[in-house]
Amino acid sequence: MVSKRIQKALLGNSAIRAMFVEGKEMAAKYGAENVYDFSLGNPATPAPEAFHAAVRDLLDTADANGAAGSLALHGYMENAGYKEVRQAIADNLNRRFGTKFDAHNLIMTVGAAGGINIIFKTILDPGDEVIAFAPFFGEYRQYAANFDAGLVTVQPDLHTFQPDLADLEAKITAKTKALIVNTPNNPTGVIYKPETMQSIGAILEKKQKEYGTDIYLISDEPYRELVYDGNHEDFLTKYYKNTIVGYSFSKSLSLPGERIGYVVVPDEAADAGELIRGIEISNRTLGFVNAPSLVQQAVARCLEEKTDVSFYDENRKMLYEGLTKLGFTCIKPEGAFYLWVKSPMEDEEAFVNEGKKFHLLMVKGGAFGCPGYVRLAYCVSHETIERSLPAFAKLAESCGLTAGK
Amino acid sequence: MVSKRIQKALLGNSAIRAMFVEGKEMAAKYGAENVYDFSLGNPATPAPEAFHAAVRDLLDTADANGAAGSLALHGYMENAGYKEVRQAIADNLNRRFGTKFDAHNLIMTVGAAGGINIIFKTILDPGDEVIAFAPFFGEYRQYAANFDAGLVTVQPDLHTFQPDLADLEAKITAKTKALIVNTPNNPTGVIYKPETMQSIGAILEKKQKEYGTDIYLISDEPYRELVYDGNHEDFLTKYYKNTIVGYSFSKSLSLPGERIGYVVVPDEAADAGELIRGIEISNRTLGFVNAPSLVQQAVARCLEEKTDVSFYDENRKMLYEGLTKLGFTCIKPEGAFYLWVKSPMEDEEAFVNEGKKFHLLMVKGGAFGCPGYVRLAYCVSHETIERSLPAFAKLAESCGLTAGK
Repeated sequence: MVSKRIQKALLGNSAIRAMFVEGKEMAAKYGAENVYDFSLGNPATPAPEAFHAAVRDLLDTADANGAAGSLALHGYMENAGYKEVRQAIADNLNRRFGTKFDAHNLIMTVGAAGGINIIFKTILDPGDEVIAFAPFFGEYRQYAANFDAGLVTVQPDLHTFQPDLADLEAKITAKTKALIVNTPNNPTGVIYKPETMQSIGAILEKKQKEYGTDIYLISDEPYRELVYDGNHEDFLTKYYKNTIVGYSFSKSLSLPGERIGYVVVPDEAADAGELIRGIEISNRTLGFVNAPSLVQQAVARCLEEKTDVSFYDENRKMLYEGLTKLGFTCIKPEGAFYLWVKSPMEDEEAFVNEGKKFHLLMVKGGAFGCPGYVRLAYCVSHETIERSLPAFAKLAESCGLTAGK
Repeated sequence: MVSKRIQKALLGNSAIRAMFVEGKEMAAKYGAENVYDFSLGNPATPAPEAFHAAVRDLLDTADANGAAGSLALHGYMENAGYKEVRQAIADNLNRRFGTKFDAHNLIMTVGAAGGINIIFKTILDPGDEVIAFAPFFGEYRQYAANFDAGLVTVQPDLHTFQPDLADLEAKITAKTKALIVNTPNNPTGVIYKPETMQSIGAILEKKQKEYGTDIYLISDEPYRELVYDGNHEDFLTKYYKNTIVGYSFSKSLSLPGERIGYVVVPDEAADAGELIRGIEISNRTLGFVNAPSLVQQAVARCLEEKTDVSFYDENRKMLYEGLTKLGFTCIKPEGAFYLWVKSPMEDEEAFVNEGKKFHLLMVKGGAFGCPGYVRLAYCVSHETIERSLPAFAKLAESCGLTAGK
């Protein structure tokens, strides 16, 4: 007998993951070139050659086992990760963002998903509340539930998909332990501007005083470097003292399967020392133990590497312009690699199913707490986008959109 | 403010991990060659060259990103892991142990720690009980607590350190959801013989009928291949239908930092289909997402590789004979790479502290639910063992042991 929670999960499961599997099945049936799979954020650009060079060099030169004091390649290290790796990342962040971190502010994690879970484990008691701005990465709900906390959602402005800050203020209670933000945003591609972040910081400060609590701002930033149209990479610790950052190299170095990321806790955060030690302990006791060792060391050598933003930018323009011309209403993405499209049918699940008829795989907005829309992950090849446009034209026609005619 | 659980954890924390950090500090102070660190199971034998060759070959030949259907090197795959990798491991187990597994029976995991956590998440409801045979790997207690389940301990026979099966029978209740066994055992080095496993299986069958429940036997087997004195590698699914296996390559391929292992759920286990899907979901929702991708593929190419058991065997003999001659009472290890030593002082923590005076780092038995003993991890260099013996002689003297004189 599986647990009650899992019995429930078996009924729902992840719409994104189900689509990923369905896409593979459709590709086998119709040929990969005839299926347009926009379901998963699996980067289409390869990992930088520097990453492979770093791995090769590590294999050639580093100590393969646990000689004391050396950067042992495959051995255990502190649960927070190699000190040298954490220091290298701190130095890199300090150079880029004017921060003042040190190795002790960082914990290397099994991706951002691992990072958010160990942050949540460290700060959440049963009954606590975490606020998220809809639409949001649907897994946040599971992550909060792992620690018996609830997820409270704040509605977006449906024109800009910026968060509704009045609604944020209304939703904060004495139980609010954290607000999780994700900018550039999955699934909308929207960026929260400095003014927005300043306003959010001010609201959190005010509410902390009102309730006499600490409210942590958790910045989930796997898309930090994926910005377009002159937007700048940002680092949110400067807007609010109690900010904790969760980062992943999945998108910036195209390493989603390797599960490598980090958490940053600034010294100025409330109870920073306990937080850092708590997150280390959570990393161990939740079963991560440490971030994968070889990859930890390899990414530390690739901190100046950049993914090919122009590659995604080309896809962005092609898909946004193509779909807009066909009559679809799209939010123009400013970052990340997702396009957020208003469903022309009232029930967006019906629209997703209609898309499948033309071999178009999209994810329903309901999976992100925002029905009535769909998400397209355009981290695919240019060819896939080009070849998908005639299929979208057919879909537009079948939905009665006329702008494209 | 950190959560109540973490506040509590900050007071306790892991004795093993604290010792690991203390060992590094002592090594920096006195020189690594003058510190005898027996605290952590960090293998001293290097990973096999075949592992490095596999990684190099993968970097040279595999598809680095997500082309459909290929074994993409660093991309997302199903949460259970690459099908090809799971099939290769199933085939290897079937050849070695006469089992009949298929790719669908396996879930690749972030080490055995990740594996046990996702098994626990899948089967445990709040208030459920997991039974462990003392002494046991202390983290089991945290893993059960992650899902609000309790750990119930069964006492060992203090002569043989085999489990007391009458005590097992007495401890099983309607709340018992699982028994976790670890053979070859950490921390004692004892192996549970086929007759013992058959008796355990019979007890579990009987109790399942009595209570009308399913009780899973969880076999945590990172030390499966580390057996001495003509003992055979064993695979526990043959003794009891409801067996789930958690494996790690940490010790067998000397890759503890890489966090790579797998879970096996046989088709004959109760609710096998739901278990498998539940464990996949738990892998995702607890934040592991999937086992690290490059390393998954590399270990699949090293399934015939063996660690140098003779290396550990030499250490085993040197340490067991050396300490026994000095008058210490030791359990002779049959497997794994730990020596379990009776504390000559009533309070084994005082004995551990006495050891530190001679730069000997041991872990207190209390960390394994069995005070009055200490654990020595002899997965160190031969030189460390040789050089430690005079220090143990001094320790024996300071504790009033006379056999060595």
